Amino acid sequence: MPDSFDRIAVLGLGLIGGSIVQALARGGYQVSGYDPDPVEAAAARGTGYTVAASAAEAVAGADLIVLAMPLSRLDRALSAISGKVAAGAVVTDVGTLKVPVLQAARRLLPGVRFVGGHPLAGTEQSGFLAGDPLLFRDAPWALTLEPDTDLQAWLSLAVLLCDLGAKPVPTTAAEQDAAVARVIGLPHMLAEALALSGLRGGELGLSLAAGSYTSGSRVARTRPDLVATWCDGNPALISALDDAIASLVTTRDTLLEGGSVLPLAQAGHRARMDWEHREFAPVDLPADADTLRQHGRDGGWITAVIEKDGSGLGELRLLGMRPVR
Amino acid sequence: MPDSFDRIAVLGLGLIGGSIVQALARGGYQVSGYDPDPVEAAAARGTGYTVAASAAEAVAGADLIVLAMPLSRLDRALSAISGKVAAGAVVTDVGTLKVPVLQAARRLLPGVRFVGGHPLAGTEQSGFLAGDPLLFRDAPWALTLEPDTDLQAWLSLAVLLCDLGAKPVPTTAAEQDAAVARVIGLPHMLAEALALSGLRGGELGLSLAAGSYTSGSRVARTRPDLVATWCDGNPALISALDDAIASLVTTRDTLLEGGSVLPLAQAGHRARMDWEHREFAPVDLPADADTLRQHGRDGGWITAVIEKDGSGLGELRLLGMRPVR
Repeated sequence: MPDSFDRIAVLGLGLIGGSIVQALARGGYQVSGYDPDPVEAAAARGTGYTVAASAAEAVAGADLIVLAMPLSRLDRALSAISGKVAAGAVVTDVGTLKVPVLQAARRLLPGVRFVGGHPLAGTEQSGFLAGDPLLFRDAPWALTLEPDTDLQAWLSLAVLLCDLGAKPVPTTAAEQDAAVARVIGLPHMLAEALALSGLRGGELGLSLAAGSYTSGSRVARTRPDLVATWCDGNPALISALDDAIASLVTTRDTLLEGGSVLPLAQAGHRARMDWEHREFAPVDLPADADTLRQHGRDGGWITAVIEKDGSGLGELRLLGMRPVR
Repeated sequence: MPDSFDRIAVLGLGLIGGSIVQALARGGYQVSGYDPDPVEAAAARGTGYTVAASAAEAVAGADLIVLAMPLSRLDRALSAISGKVAAGAVVTDVGTLKVPVLQAARRLLPGVRFVGGHPLAGTEQSGFLAGDPLLFRDAPWALTLEPDTDLQAWLSLAVLLCDLGAKPVPTTAAEQDAAVARVIGLPHMLAEALALSGLRGGELGLSLAAGSYTSGSRVARTRPDLVATWCDGNPALISALDDAIASLVTTRDTLLEGGSVLPLAQAGHRARMDWEHREFAPVDLPADADTLRQHGRDGGWITAVIEKDGSGLGELRLLGMRPVR
């Protein structure tokens, strides 16, 4: 079996980092947190969790380091722990975009086993006290597997995430960022555009705004600086926007010619219903990076890492689920 | 006081028509329904409501007729009751777009007092049994007041709607359709485009799709033919789409130049939060059509129709609420 982690450090104790600390402690792991914000540190300490006095103290002797600060503070955090990561330790993160984090980790932590992560979980709240040890239950968690990623480190993390109830999705940084452009970046851009266009229609429209406007603009409630860190510098968002713009322009031109929105409505309806009604089947996979990446590309995730029956050599295989068409 | 209605006919017993019948019966009104679909008719009759055997029977002697069928069946319904509407009776409807209904009513029911209506209420369910007598509680209800609309008929309907707990919004058919383009048509077009663009990103994106994709594409679940009746033929939807497309194109071009989505995110965030945090103040209005239309244009609605103190002449005034800036 891949190495399990004996001592885990979580840097950043906001909603996601705090939930990770709580989930790990609940799972029996030895975990130590750190946050430069004394409010978050006090909240974690006051509710019974171990909080270090510095990032260096937290990471000393840790065999897994989870970086859970905002992207804007990631470079500083990587520099702060540079040279202090124990030999053989694994470093991971929880950011929305994986290419910039991977680049920073290669630059600032050369020789360290880094595996990028992105839990698809969250609420509209923030802070340690908004954390929830069950936040990751059934949540997809992208886990990057590049050609130079240490497969053993990746597998160890996959085991840990399964243990927290999450669904590890094997992917590359570039592929996950392309996917996220369409299901996180684009929905935020459309919500912002809707909120703004609704306002420009004047007070009458705002007083008639109901269900579709409310749900369509819901994520425009998110802090704009966070939205920017999920979108900026992601080239795939440009093509996702092009795609949505093309649908809207075609529909606009059709309306101008006296035509119907029906083709777009039918295609969108079918896409949404197909997505809701996907079905999944179990699958058995070898511990092979190419196979795992293809599994993620096909919409699959990992449910367990186990030893191959009767191999007697500790050879591993993975159980997973994938969509059935 | 404006005339109250002694005998109300509701044609169409789906979710909206059914909820109106239930709300009126609960309010002590004498109401008779009709639906050509024997399933809906039986559902209404079986739960204790009065259901007529034909549209003609339902409208005979009614002083208010509510047309609650889908837009595609409205012309047929107007033709069916033409010549059968009692002298002095009022006819209203519940459709999303008001210009096409107003045109049809002028053509097919000449000389009849028609007031277009649009309750901003609904669920994802359909049918009489999904109806709810409290569906319209606190719901805006656009009520058209054209230069040729009978003000007494309009006031009588406003009183009835206040009695059902709804918020009558005085407006014209053209202004309501322009407003609806931005808060119903546009959100549906964006949801369809999102559902479709998400799908085009492949299986990995679909497996990572979470909160923002789910809420952004929610209304793509709506039946496409209904979406088309809310959008097609509404010229204001073209400019609403132009507006949203312009925001998205600007953001796309900014990303291409290495810039940030922050300006759009900030503007959208501010629009959404301002909308959520609007505050309202009571207002006292004369029963004057121009004043009432301006009140609706300013984001206001009616809460009561009362007799002016001490006028002794039955002179009316209206109480309402309007946004405070």
